[in-house]
Amino acid sequence: MNGGDPISRRPAWRSIAAAWELARLDRREAAPSGWIAATVPGAVQLDWARARGLPDAAIGQNVRLYEGLEDYHWLYRTRVPRARLAAGEQLVFACGGVDYACEVRVAGRLAFRHEGLFTPFEIDVSDCPPGAELDVLILPAPKLPGAPPDRTQASRVCKPPVSYGWDWHPRLIPLGLWAAAGFIARPRAHLRHVDFAYTLSGDLSEAAITVAAEAAGGDAQPRWRLLDARGSTVAESASAPVSLRGPRLWWTHDHGEPSLYTLEVTCGGDIYRRRVGFRRVRLVMPEGGWKHPSGFPMSRSHPPVTVELNGRVIFAKGSNWVNADIFPGAITADTLRPLLRLARDANFNVLRSWGGAIVNPDAFFDQCDELGLLVWQEFPLACNCYPDDPAYLRILDQESRSIIRRVRQHPCLGLWGGGNELFNAWSGMTDQSLPIRLLNRNCYDLDPGTPFLPTSPVDGMGHGDYRFRDERGREVFEIFQRARFTAYSEFGCPGPSPAAYLKTFIPEAELWPPRPGTSWQTHHGFEAWEADPTSWLCTATLEHYFGPSGDLDSLVDRGTWLQCVGLQAIFEEARRQKPGCAMALNWCFNEPWPSVAGPCIVNWPARPKPAYHAVRLACRPVLASARFAKFQWRSGETFAAEIWLLNDSADDLPAGELEVTLAAGGRSTRLLLWAHPPVAAGRNLAGPGVEAVLPPVSADAFELSLKASPRTEWSSTYRLSLLPETA
Amino acid sequence: MNGGDPISRRPAWRSIAAAWELARLDRREAAPSGWIAATVPGAVQLDWARARGLPDAAIGQNVRLYEGLEDYHWLYRTRVPRARLAAGEQLVFACGGVDYACEVRVAGRLAFRHEGLFTPFEIDVSDCPPGAELDVLILPAPKLPGAPPDRTQASRVCKPPVSYGWDWHPRLIPLGLWAAAGFIARPRAHLRHVDFAYTLSGDLSEAAITVAAEAAGGDAQPRWRLLDARGSTVAESASAPVSLRGPRLWWTHDHGEPSLYTLEVTCGGDIYRRRVGFRRVRLVMPEGGWKHPSGFPMSRSHPPVTVELNGRVIFAKGSNWVNADIFPGAITADTLRPLLRLARDANFNVLRSWGGAIVNPDAFFDQCDELGLLVWQEFPLACNCYPDDPAYLRILDQESRSIIRRVRQHPCLGLWGGGNELFNAWSGMTDQSLPIRLLNRNCYDLDPGTPFLPTSPVDGMGHGDYRFRDERGREVFEIFQRARFTAYSEFGCPGPSPAAYLKTFIPEAELWPPRPGTSWQTHHGFEAWEADPTSWLCTATLEHYFGPSGDLDSLVDRGTWLQCVGLQAIFEEARRQKPGCAMALNWCFNEPWPSVAGPCIVNWPARPKPAYHAVRLACRPVLASARFAKFQWRSGETFAAEIWLLNDSADDLPAGELEVTLAAGGRSTRLLLWAHPPVAAGRNLAGPGVEAVLPPVSADAFELSLKASPRTEWSSTYRLSLLPETA
Repeated sequence: MNGGDPISRRPAWRSIAAAWELARLDRREAAPSGWIAATVPGAVQLDWARARGLPDAAIGQNVRLYEGLEDYHWLYRTRVPRARLAAGEQLVFACGGVDYACEVRVAGRLAFRHEGLFTPFEIDVSDCPPGAELDVLILPAPKLPGAPPDRTQASRVCKPPVSYGWDWHPRLIPLGLWAAAGFIARPRAHLRHVDFAYTLSGDLSEAAITVAAEAAGGDAQPRWRLLDARGSTVAESASAPVSLRGPRLWWTHDHGEPSLYTLEVTCGGDIYRRRVGFRRVRLVMPEGGWKHPSGFPMSRSHPPVTVELNGRVIFAKGSNWVNADIFPGAITADTLRPLLRLARDANFNVLRSWGGAIVNPDAFFDQCDELGLLVWQEFPLACNCYPDDPAYLRILDQESRSIIRRVRQHPCLGLWGGGNELFNAWSGMTDQSLPIRLLNRNCYDLDPGTPFLPTSPVDGMGHGDYRFRDERGREVFEIFQRARFTAYSEFGCPGPSPAAYLKTFIPEAELWPPRPGTSWQTHHGFEAWEADPTSWLCTATLEHYFGPSGDLDSLVDRGTWLQCVGLQAIFEEARRQKPGCAMALNWCFNEPWPSVAGPCIVNWPARPKPAYHAVRLACRPVLASARFAKFQWRSGETFAAEIWLLNDSADDLPAGELEVTLAAGGRSTRLLLWAHPPVAAGRNLAGPGVEAVLPPVSADAFELSLKASPRTEWSSTYRLSLLPETA
Repeated sequence: MNGGDPISRRPAWRSIAAAWELARLDRREAAPSGWIAATVPGAVQLDWARARGLPDAAIGQNVRLYEGLEDYHWLYRTRVPRARLAAGEQLVFACGGVDYACEVRVAGRLAFRHEGLFTPFEIDVSDCPPGAELDVLILPAPKLPGAPPDRTQASRVCKPPVSYGWDWHPRLIPLGLWAAAGFIARPRAHLRHVDFAYTLSGDLSEAAITVAAEAAGGDAQPRWRLLDARGSTVAESASAPVSLRGPRLWWTHDHGEPSLYTLEVTCGGDIYRRRVGFRRVRLVMPEGGWKHPSGFPMSRSHPPVTVELNGRVIFAKGSNWVNADIFPGAITADTLRPLLRLARDANFNVLRSWGGAIVNPDAFFDQCDELGLLVWQEFPLACNCYPDDPAYLRILDQESRSIIRRVRQHPCLGLWGGGNELFNAWSGMTDQSLPIRLLNRNCYDLDPGTPFLPTSPVDGMGHGDYRFRDERGREVFEIFQRARFTAYSEFGCPGPSPAAYLKTFIPEAELWPPRPGTSWQTHHGFEAWEADPTSWLCTATLEHYFGPSGDLDSLVDRGTWLQCVGLQAIFEEARRQKPGCAMALNWCFNEPWPSVAGPCIVNWPARPKPAYHAVRLACRPVLASARFAKFQWRSGETFAAEIWLLNDSADDLPAGELEVTLAAGGRSTRLLLWAHPPVAAGRNLAGPGVEAVLPPVSADAFELSLKASPRTEWSSTYRLSLLPETA
């Protein structure tokens, strides 16, 4: 039933817990021995670690101890329970998907072969004697023969490539029953599948509703009703098409209420409930977007990536979401809740669920539905050349259909994406690649109302930079002020993790100084990204600005400063480029395990870094903003900035005042008192410029402060580096 | 049976000619009267003109007399013939498609409603009494209510928009039975549909063949065999998949033989034959294509448009094909034959069958199969915003499926295109438009082996310029030497039609001087294209170079000179930009009726203009080529050119000599004798530059001559304008 947790939505269904045990097999045909307890959902590595006392993979360099476990066959075993079936009931074994391929044997007989994390399957075991063995033989992790030990090993399968190693993810390839797998007793006459679909009228005042309920094993006709938040029935099944007048629309939290309804479908004794919502998402051309290109020979205009939600253009602010854990089977609703609340509280309205990772379980989308976060969901393809060959297309077809049929039920779904950076040199796929055409086809067939992007970036969109300062010495200020993109769907500034956090996973002996080859490197502090050998600590950049760091706190403070200032600058600059630019999503939001440094703004499992707060402020619906040229200045130098009011809200802003002051070494100078006019909804306002000779003080920083009144919550500050006057 | 002419391929089928008559109805329900004879296939306008003595629409301003005929209902009537059916035979009414919508009534009863040119239909009339009336009521031409009288009226239908008026096509909207429509007696047990499909192995040495033959009304199993050109059976139906080793591949005529086979399918007494062929077409990234873009923020690389045929990258040289007649129903195999031979003889290997026009009948593709011309077939969408609404998507789905199922059977099919310039401002569609996603879906489902472009241009490709000299004074030399596109899929230089040809359709009284408001304007000599009020005679440009023209011959000669030089320059420049550029298709090849001037190189119906020969030479597989800065020079000025050898052939070229001379006023000077080295297959060679002070002679032109030896057929000449020295 569309994945997720079927039981909580089915009062007539009974879940019968399965007790699982697990055996590692030296070869496929080996007789199992040395059974250990298994937790499902989970991963064979977690069970093995518990049983054999392997230390926590997240600490120090322990992750190495997990190497190679993915190359074994693993046998999960449970027994068909004694179920006391009532008349007309059946007992099924239900599995939400497997990481990555398996054979299921019931009472020693092959019952089913399966490949893929995202397609659930069921086996009717009503006629099996209680106590019969049910075995799930997990095959070794797929690794493309001849490929190097990296993500390319996953380029022929629908297994998320990230666990094969990334610049912020260790090489640890999970395996096993990652989704719910157990027994269900239920009426033979039950709802096999429920699809909720609707078409909104052009003016959004009416929803034409279709509920397709497929019933199994009985004559009862499915009936449905739709309940509003107060439990009143607002629509119900009828012979004619059903129309709901004045549906309360689902909005992102910053533009309205994420209104939800409850759909209840009954069929005989079976009842199915889920929350649904109404929204219309489009990608539209930005104002002025058709003016380019001009002149001959003339190419096409850029593909639109401006989000229009329920008829209103919204500036998409947010972040890239990655796996919340290196073991996706360990992710629960409780893992996700604090993370998604942080995303909402960061003033984000969009999350790009990045294609290198899993497609999250329903709990993720349920929470995004509630919190009013729009999700750009990519299929599990990233940075590889996925081939045109029939075997790959077959599994991609199966998995993508399962994903679409499940996720399209959620109003938070805003955008389908084919995968990450597929049309760039390092991937080598193109518009002609059949996997991309297949995904477009499946999205068109199953969810034509949701936009589809073949990949990110498409033409006009930009990915990167991921550094505060590039190898040519250009800083984020220059890079982004010169750029003109329709969307910045990835950009990042790395920053170290807080010292207190570092101490939780870097052994004390390694803590200072950070050195390559130690846990610092294992946790992505050195040689993580090929473009910078000091990534992600970026010690070369830190030394450029500050000289050598004397201790851990100083290193962390300096790096944190750059991350905060850099992300603030990029988010605000992208917003200034509205309406030509319509999106800013930093790389990345969260992380799957503890990193010593990197571009994320929330440490694993859900600890905001200081940069999180800088981003949160830069993403306020309305704020005063300054555009200036660089990070580091000198006393005696003339500092200059443009002053702006940025307004992403749907409200007209009243006139007000903005006081700009520059403070250094305890001295504060007012540079400007700007009586700004009213600002139209969704519009920015460019204000006057300010200039000031930086005073000769001994401080190492100065602060530019933009104080708004009467709306003090629009105020902003910028802390920049100040060097002494050159002799 | 996939459209086309079913009878010639079906010896067991008998065509029974239908005698048609036609009545114009003042309103839908009007009783028909004033019957006139009708020719089918054809158009109601042609029948009306014959009956009422309307003069030829192609002459003078007669086309105006045809205005409004498309707004009537028209009733075609024939009678069910006495067919003498043998046992087991049936009689059907078969219609290849209707322009544009109709109701069919048999013996006074509504039997069928149909919309669309490209989907055939049949009605079983075996049980109708001979002599029963069979009526086809043609509805008025679709015109979107509220739209201006131009192509936008066709933006909700699959009727080619070109006949609603274009800068080279009069507004004359054909209507009626444009395809074959008549009676067929045939076995009830017959082949309903035959699909030939194959997969070539990676090294092209083997073809895995699938023949899907759908039989109707009998138990006989379809059987098939494949015959080579000598009539030997090389493969035949079997229970196992059939593999053909060493298939002779279909090549464009310039790269090999367009090898064809004959497929014969039998089912009971029914036999079906068609020609088939084996080719693999891909769009691949050009050499160096992945290097762009570079730096951050980074967008995607350009979509590939480099044609790879049977594993070999070929430079696509050709032209844009438009309707061969303003009445598509009047186009026959004989109309097409001389045109397609001219295309082949022009050294073209690709024709883009432009989306504003019809999708041609099978005769077109049959001849391209034979001649070795690759076809880029666009769906009938052009320069309009075709909507997401369900009614349009339904007819587009129907028509595109019919088109794909028919055309994919032809080896000459090289590329599907969604339509013309859909992602530009004047159309306003985007990648998110459901019609484009539907076409991508249908092409993926029905013909995944053929590349699909959503529109032309896509990013990296260029359309235009269409003038020798633009409003800023830039000539084609400068425009294209500065441009860097992956493909030039449209570009043009207008030229007048030859004087002798003009005299065939411009009334003598109007012949000189050309004036707006006369037949000159009707036939696109003035105000044809909004960017230039003197288009397509372009008198302003002619006067810029030559001053006023004193007579018709002088006007024609001057315009022809510019068209020849301009097209020569663009084709050769595009070829010099190989491998970054992979395609040059001029706008346009042919025309649907006589124009006084315009960018085509072959006048209607099949009369090559002088520019045809300039293009033919510029498209030779190998030629010597000169790159220079402009058209008009002065005595005393220093002329300079780069000398190149352009090689699109698959052959390595031997070393040789190239003698470059400049001739003016009877004096000839050798500028260079270049002993060039061997040139690799498919590679250009940049040679030395030449320079010369232009002599003070009284001639108005000079000629740059590149004489190749020993391969004299590679020689080229350039005739350029020479002004006297300024005083």
